[in-house]
Amino acid sequence: MSKPFQPASAKVLAFDIFGTVVDWHASICREVQDLRAGVDGDAFAMAWRGGYRPAMARVMSGELGWTLIDELHRMILDGIVDQFGLGDLSEADRQHLNKAWHRLDPWPDVRVGLARLKTRYTICTLSNGNIGLLTNMAKRAGLPWDCVLSAEVFRAYKPDPATYLGVARVFDVPPGEVMLVAAHQDDLAAARACGLQTAYIERPAEFGAARPKDVSPDPANTWHARDFNALADQLGC
Amino acid sequence: MSKPFQPASAKVLAFDIFGTVVDWHASICREVQDLRAGVDGDAFAMAWRGGYRPAMARVMSGELGWTLIDELHRMILDGIVDQFGLGDLSEADRQHLNKAWHRLDPWPDVRVGLARLKTRYTICTLSNGNIGLLTNMAKRAGLPWDCVLSAEVFRAYKPDPATYLGVARVFDVPPGEVMLVAAHQDDLAAARACGLQTAYIERPAEFGAARPKDVSPDPANTWHARDFNALADQLGC
Repeated sequence: MSKPFQPASAKVLAFDIFGTVVDWHASICREVQDLRAGVDGDAFAMAWRGGYRPAMARVMSGELGWTLIDELHRMILDGIVDQFGLGDLSEADRQHLNKAWHRLDPWPDVRVGLARLKTRYTICTLSNGNIGLLTNMAKRAGLPWDCVLSAEVFRAYKPDPATYLGVARVFDVPPGEVMLVAAHQDDLAAARACGLQTAYIERPAEFGAARPKDVSPDPANTWHARDFNALADQLGC
Repeated sequence: MSKPFQPASAKVLAFDIFGTVVDWHASICREVQDLRAGVDGDAFAMAWRGGYRPAMARVMSGELGWTLIDELHRMILDGIVDQFGLGDLSEADRQHLNKAWHRLDPWPDVRVGLARLKTRYTICTLSNGNIGLLTNMAKRAGLPWDCVLSAEVFRAYKPDPATYLGVARVFDVPPGEVMLVAAHQDDLAAARACGLQTAYIERPAEFGAARPKDVSPDPANTWHARDFNALADQLGC
């Protein structure tokens, strides 16, 4: 699975966030149940996250103008509250709940793993989340990014090549010196098509412990690691 | 000069960089003299920096398309090498020297002051420097930004209102909850006109010890502080 140690030629590690760095499923469960005991947190989290790709597709197709994830999350939320008996939530509660995405908890290996990787590489986010969301999340969770990059900087959502190539352009390096780190094979495949190195991270419980995810390796990735500490081991950090 | 302690209502502190956070004059002197002993480092630094505003004005007027500071610095450098006897510098040396702006040293109070301010506020850059430059500088100098914001994000240079208002928009707060921290009264005046709070920082040696700068207070600023530690004192951090 893991290759014998060889220093990677990458200079910049760009991290996917939702699912890769933070556990959105457990965090959204917790947040909605804090607000209203008895709600089916698992189903609520799945429904909210389930609206994400269709909403982004509406932006990418031009049906919606450029829209930040905070606003897309709110549109999706307003569309699902009734089915979870949350239609009576006040505007203040809806705003608070919508910012739950700013308060997602990292996986247990993340803080230590990022600190190790940061000693040798420039570490940045590359997420469809907006800059404010990613910054608030990092500040609360103690994520030591060198730089917060987002779809908002490039005005395009992953998997648009403008995002992957944008990281290389920002740091003035060839695409092969950037590595995308993600728990999603489709994100990694799109990055690879742009010439980036790729590291797959296993997050079998991304959709909850009851819904284990296939984390089989794809030999097309440059690296495959159980978590961020295992990646740091492989990269000699 | 300083007001009695009162918690500021600001949530975000946005920092000007060149002159406010880092000592460009001494750093550029050092870099050029490392490359070629005997060059008049003071005059060279003044000439290079002197080309900055005219170059930005060419971008803002539309004469040049959108151009990163790294490229503007290189254009200015190529225009001044002959007068300093550096016309024979190799392309590799020119590239290295141009990235001196990524290796500027912070003023002595900066690291501790920022760490204190970060405990209570979101701290970000707001510089005309590009994202890669600001990130490389922060990594080398140990500047603990929560987020690196730049003219590159807003595709406008300060003092364009899009930059100051852009910080408020990114963090989804009213302009009055953002404070610009800078050593330049014109930058602060432009921020104030957009509704931001302002903090003036004295950097009397910005242009070198031999060329002391007027650091008189302007009562229009919300705060006036000798350095970042004094600002942290005033803000109760």
